Amino acid sequence: MTIGIEQIVNQLRNILAYEQVSTNETVRELHGRDESHHATSLPDIVVFPHSTADVSAILQIAHAARVAVVPFGVGSSLEGNAIPIEQGISIDFSKMNTILDIRPEDLLVKVQPGVTRSQLNKELKKHGLQFTVDPGADATLGGMAATNASGTTAVRYGVMRDQVRDLEVVLADGTVIHTGSLAAKSSSGYHLNGLFVGSEGTLGCFTELTLKVYGIPEFVTAGRAVFPTVGEAVSAVAALLQAGIMVGRVELVDEASMVQANIYNETSYEEKPTLFLEFHGNETGMQEDIEFATAIFEDFNCSSIAFETDNAARNKLWEARHSLAYAYIHAYPGKKLMSTDVCVPISVLAETILYARKQLDAVGLAGGLVGHVGDGNFHALLMLDPANAEEQAKADRFNEHIVQYALLRGGSCTGEHGVGIGKMKYQATEHGASLLVMKSIKAALDPHNIMNPGKIFTM
Amino acid sequence: MTIGIEQIVNQLRNILAYEQVSTNETVRELHGRDESHHATSLPDIVVFPHSTADVSAILQIAHAARVAVVPFGVGSSLEGNAIPIEQGISIDFSKMNTILDIRPEDLLVKVQPGVTRSQLNKELKKHGLQFTVDPGADATLGGMAATNASGTTAVRYGVMRDQVRDLEVVLADGTVIHTGSLAAKSSSGYHLNGLFVGSEGTLGCFTELTLKVYGIPEFVTAGRAVFPTVGEAVSAVAALLQAGIMVGRVELVDEASMVQANIYNETSYEEKPTLFLEFHGNETGMQEDIEFATAIFEDFNCSSIAFETDNAARNKLWEARHSLAYAYIHAYPGKKLMSTDVCVPISVLAETILYARKQLDAVGLAGGLVGHVGDGNFHALLMLDPANAEEQAKADRFNEHIVQYALLRGGSCTGEHGVGIGKMKYQATEHGASLLVMKSIKAALDPHNIMNPGKIFTM
Repeated sequence: MTIGIEQIVNQLRNILAYEQVSTNETVRELHGRDESHHATSLPDIVVFPHSTADVSAILQIAHAARVAVVPFGVGSSLEGNAIPIEQGISIDFSKMNTILDIRPEDLLVKVQPGVTRSQLNKELKKHGLQFTVDPGADATLGGMAATNASGTTAVRYGVMRDQVRDLEVVLADGTVIHTGSLAAKSSSGYHLNGLFVGSEGTLGCFTELTLKVYGIPEFVTAGRAVFPTVGEAVSAVAALLQAGIMVGRVELVDEASMVQANIYNETSYEEKPTLFLEFHGNETGMQEDIEFATAIFEDFNCSSIAFETDNAARNKLWEARHSLAYAYIHAYPGKKLMSTDVCVPISVLAETILYARKQLDAVGLAGGLVGHVGDGNFHALLMLDPANAEEQAKADRFNEHIVQYALLRGGSCTGEHGVGIGKMKYQATEHGASLLVMKSIKAALDPHNIMNPGKIFTM
Repeated sequence: MTIGIEQIVNQLRNILAYEQVSTNETVRELHGRDESHHATSLPDIVVFPHSTADVSAILQIAHAARVAVVPFGVGSSLEGNAIPIEQGISIDFSKMNTILDIRPEDLLVKVQPGVTRSQLNKELKKHGLQFTVDPGADATLGGMAATNASGTTAVRYGVMRDQVRDLEVVLADGTVIHTGSLAAKSSSGYHLNGLFVGSEGTLGCFTELTLKVYGIPEFVTAGRAVFPTVGEAVSAVAALLQAGIMVGRVELVDEASMVQANIYNETSYEEKPTLFLEFHGNETGMQEDIEFATAIFEDFNCSSIAFETDNAARNKLWEARHSLAYAYIHAYPGKKLMSTDVCVPISVLAETILYARKQLDAVGLAGGLVGHVGDGNFHALLMLDPANAEEQAKADRFNEHIVQYALLRGGSCTGEHGVGIGKMKYQATEHGASLLVMKSIKAALDPHNIMNPGKIFTM
């Protein structure tokens, strides 16, 4: 940095209101961490823009001063994605949280980046609409676009990238661009929507998002099916997808996790690999899909299967899955949750999960496996004390083993959490010469490397 | 070019077999045009690679010699996308037409770029699978990825970009990269799949494609519904989609086109705006969807509706839609078909189609309107003699009017044909400052501008 923090603060105060620029220690601390186990690093300054013009002016100052800038939503990222490891300016988007436009006929909505998932769905419900991406956390839509978030519904509706029709982006030098249009499809020019989604703040700041929404399904049925082995559960899901049955959600919870869920909820569910399902659709078609699914599950030795349609009973049926993270956190007071995130072709998913289980037992860490099995994406939920170097080293070794296993089988080191800090070391192996292409794009768009520097890859 | 064509031919002959390098006039002519009205321009040399290594070696030579390179599939593009306007080397991928791997459990297939759509579907059928993108022409999959093709099934299964899991790409300097993986989703690094799909040969040559495939639906029903006006037909489709009814295909054919179809097929269908539909799914669910669709259509004054389930009857029902391009070509011997391609938000589709009809009548060209109405994408099919400057000028003026109309309403100048030569003039209006981002990416990846130069934008 060629000029001091104080000068930058003065420059920012020239263009923003007093309360929009903070160097308060507590405010900086809130912007120095996320929900991951990665080390805290405080920004020098936190700014709270109200508009695209504010963001553009902030970036012009940062660009001229060569100071690092990190966009910040609610800090729910899981790989240190929003931690300002080179300090500088954290741009907090919480004041840009307006739902700008709902277009039911176009099944589109335009929002500011600080709008959260639950805030949007509450508003959409009035129109009989829903936003489908559900990563668990009540993240901001800007943050979800930045990491290409997904979650339990991706098997049916796709990931965050599939929902983005247009982004307004402020580039590193303050230039404002739009990456798409309102058209449902386009073959006009390079697909910048896809490039910016998942760029984790390294290419620019999102200031508006135009997103696809869906009608709330007429009927929803929840299901739970128990299998003797993880292999049989995963094979049953693969068969379901091959048969073209549209499942709304399909989640695997392993034996160890069912044990934790029983303790936490004081329940007595069978402690065997269990699939949690949802079917969305019209009543009779869904009934036929459920009958077909039941027949497939029986072919894979499913020992018990239950379905529920009313809302309370559906929530009860999914209880073990819903409460899983809490169950682990509750069982290991003082420890932090760490989540791995590989995604593999579904043909090798069962063997990858079994390998992960074996490795987890071998390193001797407490944890379980939970998977978005329709997509081949699963998480090992590990409980560890980040201050305990030995535990952290074990967790890192375990993560390394399953990532390498996944990459060798054509998979990805991260299905939905993003690269952040934690997955940087796998980028060269996963992408090979492509990594140079990514770096050349980054260099072209952010020549001074001010946008979330030190994330995804080092320049 | 710093060295002569003869020297380049010699260099190419050093690395390829004799028959893989051609300067024959007839061969060059076959590679100097596509199915559009754009002017022919012959390449100096046509090469026929057999492998990725061949393509890499060809590009190394071209890169060193600063000679233009244009990838070529079967020449079915509609905007001059594969016409070598700066001459140089046309790379014909017809010898790289092997289906490399079919993975039913992963619903994936790996193909070389010269494999055609019908070739792939013939092979997939043996496994109960289908590749869904259907642009009409029997294009190569490499070409379809290059223009981000789509067609009648996009409303249900998405466009070409949605199907691409991984591309092997040879960059301008001969470097070979992979843009994705076999994982169904990934948040690892920049989304190069999305960037390369639709890049029209300006960023590299595709040498392998890993694509998503689907189970052949259990039941298919075809439908045809007649409406008093285009507005009512389009509103009915919007209501269908808002209700969450999954339609497999939904095509609008306007009055003028129904007239042509009746003449060509010697039929007597009502000469009114007509929707052609397909429903895919399980038997009972589909039946419920069809009943719901019928009720919606009646709300929009549908005057007649018919459904068919067996294959021959389905084809008969769709006859007018299927034969449309032939009907026009047959009616205007000696003229060439020109197709416009805007895509707009569905809320303004009806008014855009009505505007197009009015403009078409105003310029006095023969033609009709046909639309992938579920996506907001429609084509005006114009018959013209490209040698007749006045007719060409009229067609250009008409196209200009509807593109500007669409862009003002948040649409795109091309829904599926790509930019090629014909839509270059609209790129600045459509993309604004984004166009500079696209150019900076192009400059970073192809610094000597050898890859399909003069397409999409000029550097």
